[in-house]
Amino acid sequence: MKLNERGLLVVLSGPSGVGKGTVRKALFDLEGHDLVYSTSMTTRPPRAGEVDGEDYYFVTKTEFEERIKNDAFLEWAEFVGNYYGTPRDKVEEHLKAGKEVVLEIEVQGALQVREKAPDGVFVFIAPPNKEALYRRLLRRGTESAETIQKRMDKAEREFPLAHKYDYIVVNDEVTNAADRVLAIIRAEHAKTERSIHKYNELMEVGKNE
Amino acid sequence: MKLNERGLLVVLSGPSGVGKGTVRKALFDLEGHDLVYSTSMTTRPPRAGEVDGEDYYFVTKTEFEERIKNDAFLEWAEFVGNYYGTPRDKVEEHLKAGKEVVLEIEVQGALQVREKAPDGVFVFIAPPNKEALYRRLLRRGTESAETIQKRMDKAEREFPLAHKYDYIVVNDEVTNAADRVLAIIRAEHAKTERSIHKYNELMEVGKNE
Repeated sequence: MKLNERGLLVVLSGPSGVGKGTVRKALFDLEGHDLVYSTSMTTRPPRAGEVDGEDYYFVTKTEFEERIKNDAFLEWAEFVGNYYGTPRDKVEEHLKAGKEVVLEIEVQGALQVREKAPDGVFVFIAPPNKEALYRRLLRRGTESAETIQKRMDKAEREFPLAHKYDYIVVNDEVTNAADRVLAIIRAEHAKTERSIHKYNELMEVGKNE
Repeated sequence: MKLNERGLLVVLSGPSGVGKGTVRKALFDLEGHDLVYSTSMTTRPPRAGEVDGEDYYFVTKTEFEERIKNDAFLEWAEFVGNYYGTPRDKVEEHLKAGKEVVLEIEVQGALQVREKAPDGVFVFIAPPNKEALYRRLLRRGTESAETIQKRMDKAEREFPLAHKYDYIVVNDEVTNAADRVLAIIRAEHAKTERSIHKYNELMEVGKNE
């Protein structure tokens, strides 16, 4: 029995190469939850096979900028001439329906979300140590030495930002990490600040006072 | 990989008849933890079969009062002429060894512990509703109507104290409740305030600044 019926906004973030995407996928493979993944909106053209509303919401630059003006994004950013953002209204719909909305985003984006959704649950996915992250970046093999160096530099700037998150989950083994995120979701629902309202109703606290 | 290596003090509490003991037992039956139960100290004489250091630490009234003077209890109380208390030193030993120490105590005791151990994790076990608790109290069958009435009155005074706890866990089904407590323990270890120190060490944050 869940005293808090509203879904949670769960933000998975962490340095480039830490395996956020893998943890997120493993989390969705676990049983016993009602998770939805928040689809991003972008102005970049769809690639072959990409479906609007599934892979991304594809919109024009004008539409996107209109939404920025209306504060309709939890976070947004521009990469090489294209916009990417998390639409606020879709997230809110799911939360109201009692679903946990999972965002898997970059550190800068997560800190933007924190300002707009302070009741979200912010999880920093960390590598077991620096070397593990570097090895993972190198193992990708598809990137130039220069790109890898840039990613490492970015990670170095992101490591010290973990303290801004609610939880730090080490991605030592992906199933462990996903299990831990699920435990966090369950625990957050039981938190007194989220559950006291329904509890007081059930126990008729304050009713005769 | 657990960033916080110190054990947690986990206080399970809630109104009389809610099933704290059953939840605690189910919790200890679950896999994947390193829990110890904190043995209480008492001045009441051992009953047949009770073992010193297992069921209770049995001490004299003088010894107990000496310990009260030395602030050697996390909480203590007197019931019908006998003292009962939770010895602080034993709890601390286990926490240092990385074990989670579980206390299963009355609401008043839990609020005493909160003052002495603010970093403890305080879980209020709640019934699904009032009627469920009353039925459970009546079902015991061994107590007089008067005693049951007293317990109900006590529960009524304890219901409104849930807001002083960190978490509220509904004991709708005992395995569910125990699962939720275990999720809370796992989540608490991942909390940034408990894990940032070790994390910063691992990532060498602040080392070159």
